[in-house]
Amino acid sequence: MTKQFTHDDISAMPQRFRANFINSLSGFKSATLLGTTDGTTPNLAVISSVVHIGANPPLLGVIMRPHTVTRDSLSNIKQRGVYTLNHIHVEWVDKAHQTSARYAPDESEFEAVGLTPQFSETFEAPYVKESNIKMGLSVAQHFTLLNNTEMIIGEIQELFISEPLLSEDGYVDIEAAGSACISGLDSYHKTTRLAQFAYAKANTPLTKK
Amino acid sequence: MTKQFTHDDISAMPQRFRANFINSLSGFKSATLLGTTDGTTPNLAVISSVVHIGANPPLLGVIMRPHTVTRDSLSNIKQRGVYTLNHIHVEWVDKAHQTSARYAPDESEFEAVGLTPQFSETFEAPYVKESNIKMGLSVAQHFTLLNNTEMIIGEIQELFISEPLLSEDGYVDIEAAGSACISGLDSYHKTTRLAQFAYAKANTPLTKK
Repeated sequence: MTKQFTHDDISAMPQRFRANFINSLSGFKSATLLGTTDGTTPNLAVISSVVHIGANPPLLGVIMRPHTVTRDSLSNIKQRGVYTLNHIHVEWVDKAHQTSARYAPDESEFEAVGLTPQFSETFEAPYVKESNIKMGLSVAQHFTLLNNTEMIIGEIQELFISEPLLSEDGYVDIEAAGSACISGLDSYHKTTRLAQFAYAKANTPLTKK
Repeated sequence: MTKQFTHDDISAMPQRFRANFINSLSGFKSATLLGTTDGTTPNLAVISSVVHIGANPPLLGVIMRPHTVTRDSLSNIKQRGVYTLNHIHVEWVDKAHQTSARYAPDESEFEAVGLTPQFSETFEAPYVKESNIKMGLSVAQHFTLLNNTEMIIGEIQELFISEPLLSEDGYVDIEAAGSACISGLDSYHKTTRLAQFAYAKANTPLTKK
């Protein structure tokens, strides 16, 4: 039974209901921990808005809301210009989600939820030691969108992955890495590969890799 | 065995290898078919760059490359101002991926891959009949990013979902809908829910919904 929702139907929804509803519609999202620092306290925040912008130079985007629980992260990124993105593993999605609680600015989410900050020799922002895929980025572009959310585009400066995850053609097997995904605001999922396809050509049957 | 990649390592990668590599790093992505029209031919393109921008007003973003196989879609969106986003079902990821082949502008990917265009009474762009979650959007903001990719932000004007998918709190169960997700450029996955968590509070154990 298919139900239609109009623009007016959406406008009339109670705020929390609408937030759950619209946040479900964009489909499955990456489950990522954003690591930042104010120079003293390492900060960690779960985000689901990472988006691929380009490979050369290597750019990733993040959408952030300035007046929500991630405001410390956003302030740290603006101050220091660097941050880390760390894939959330299916075995500790609970710890990752707990970072969405409101901790005081001088309280580290790492310690509060039981994850370990890790630092590289050249990068100020903290990585998540337990993560199998982690990247250090510097801000490349930053602007405010029409609804006053902010988009930060970062360039990857360095990254760490477990070596067996890397295929000959460059693909990184994030399922074998145990990376989780998110739907809505609070649902976490693991994945099972259906197929990996070869380059598609018109009028030619699609083949699997 | 963890391996570090520096910015220089990434710059030195062969182009196709780097494209596969960087496209894997953003984590799992939504698997979506973008429906457009030039007024005559219904066009369909697989995309994995849908990102949540906001719930009120209901906004979704899409990142597009102007000189790739999705150039017809981008041109249609700019001309007509409207488009649809349709969740890809796990049972027809092959048909969805086949839309990434280069078809002539006057050839409909719907017909070529075996999916059915569906029109609502009030919306010009074609929906995918076989999709369990489909949305019609109008362009709300459009700009060019630092690497010359384009970001289109659209406002949801209407949407269609199978009614049993909607929870009391507004969450739409996209896993029950059979929505797929993507990693890299060509790997499709189904999901299994690990947990759905209640609102997290500091110094309070996290509970499941």
